[in-house]
Amino acid sequence: MRFDSHRTLADHMTALGHDPDAVRAGKRHLDPQRIAAYLEVHIEQGPHLVNLGKRCAVVTGIRGNHRYKHGRVLGRYGHAGAVPRNERRDALLAAVEFVGALESLWKRREAAGEDLVCTVGEFHTDAAVHTITKIPGEVRFTMDYRSYDEGVLVDCHRELTGIAERIGRERRVTVDLGAHTHAQAAVMDPGLTALARTTARALGIDAPDMASGAGHDCAVFANAGVPCAMIFIRNEHSSHNPDEAMEIDDFAEACRLLHGMLDTLTA
Amino acid sequence: MRFDSHRTLADHMTALGHDPDAVRAGKRHLDPQRIAAYLEVHIEQGPHLVNLGKRCAVVTGIRGNHRYKHGRVLGRYGHAGAVPRNERRDALLAAVEFVGALESLWKRREAAGEDLVCTVGEFHTDAAVHTITKIPGEVRFTMDYRSYDEGVLVDCHRELTGIAERIGRERRVTVDLGAHTHAQAAVMDPGLTALARTTARALGIDAPDMASGAGHDCAVFANAGVPCAMIFIRNEHSSHNPDEAMEIDDFAEACRLLHGMLDTLTA
Repeated sequence: MRFDSHRTLADHMTALGHDPDAVRAGKRHLDPQRIAAYLEVHIEQGPHLVNLGKRCAVVTGIRGNHRYKHGRVLGRYGHAGAVPRNERRDALLAAVEFVGALESLWKRREAAGEDLVCTVGEFHTDAAVHTITKIPGEVRFTMDYRSYDEGVLVDCHRELTGIAERIGRERRVTVDLGAHTHAQAAVMDPGLTALARTTARALGIDAPDMASGAGHDCAVFANAGVPCAMIFIRNEHSSHNPDEAMEIDDFAEACRLLHGMLDTLTA
Repeated sequence: MRFDSHRTLADHMTALGHDPDAVRAGKRHLDPQRIAAYLEVHIEQGPHLVNLGKRCAVVTGIRGNHRYKHGRVLGRYGHAGAVPRNERRDALLAAVEFVGALESLWKRREAAGEDLVCTVGEFHTDAAVHTITKIPGEVRFTMDYRSYDEGVLVDCHRELTGIAERIGRERRVTVDLGAHTHAQAAVMDPGLTALARTTARALGIDAPDMASGAGHDCAVFANAGVPCAMIFIRNEHSSHNPDEAMEIDDFAEACRLLHGMLDTLTA
């Protein structure tokens, strides 16, 4: 539901001539068997190609993720000067310990060779009641972690649930990760990826292989059984920040590669 | 300035018949030499009297504090999936490390017998731009710590400034504590405190000595040279939370003690 108009997604779909009941029934709008290939061109959202000094890349796979939108720590509000340490149930100190433990887990797993990135993007005490002189009784946060390896995602969830439970017990607060969504890791089609490589070579384009840390529409198509390939374009200052910047010459190079692939596929 | 009317404090004072210029010039409205005593009765804002099972207490001193209203960590926003760990400048992970270090400092100093309480009451990523899929580029926070010992306040400031500088350097972010205010610790007048004790004994009131963790108007008068005394009333569930609760019989007992002191002072 939109927070401003209070209209549901179904309302909007109906207004635009779509059928929300077909979606509810799980009917596919497109039949994966009838799609020969799904090709996607996208800016890289990290610094890999900038660091390599290459204009574009052939994507081999896309990280899956777990996303927690409704993390919450509940403690007890109290006076900042008058309550001794061992009587506090400080929601912020508990939430801070949790995020610190997440970072430790990440470093340890990364050192063990596992693929993983972790982000707590939103984290806040309650603006309606917090003040400088009050022990915080509540913190809300989000968490997103990603891996090419589905097993790592499952292991992290189990480990983080245990950490939340321990911190809650030790600090007499509730650390609730809330429900999470799961986007499956996706592998690009080996045939199409090989075509991308040979096309690049034939056109004199230096496009190394790389995996994608960010999620993409491509991952949804790939996991629905559509053969997929993806081309990344170099992008300064990563993405999701106002300074992201792609050179138009790099874009042209990626288009040349896409065009070459389409020439072969439609020949 | 009020955030709603945009009128300054000086405007409001003038409208009410006061003279803001006298305040600007540092002129005292009251002459401390002409005030015999300042007596204050207040609920205790911590759990001490509840734990002791006593109705009221004689306050011996009031904690001083350092308050930082404008703490800020500046890093760089980025994509949650695409930027590797060692290329991130995550403002939240830096702020979390700082608060974790504050708690460690507190535990260490408390174990060494120093008086100290620390609170980070407000702490938030930027609601205007944060999302679950973005590495946070900014965190704002407040910090308040208090001690009966002015030397502890000075030491904490020096140590925390060093911690902020180290974290900023190691994580390539800026950890800025911002300006802070200082409220001096205050000692109650020994003569008035002795009067409170003898009056309590004479009236059969069991009022133990205790120091105040919270700041009070009394501290301002005491530090201006006015002899001060203070009586605390037992209060359930501490203070600065909606469940705080004082029994009217406890209030009556404190008033009886205050009345007895005034009888002697004005005899």
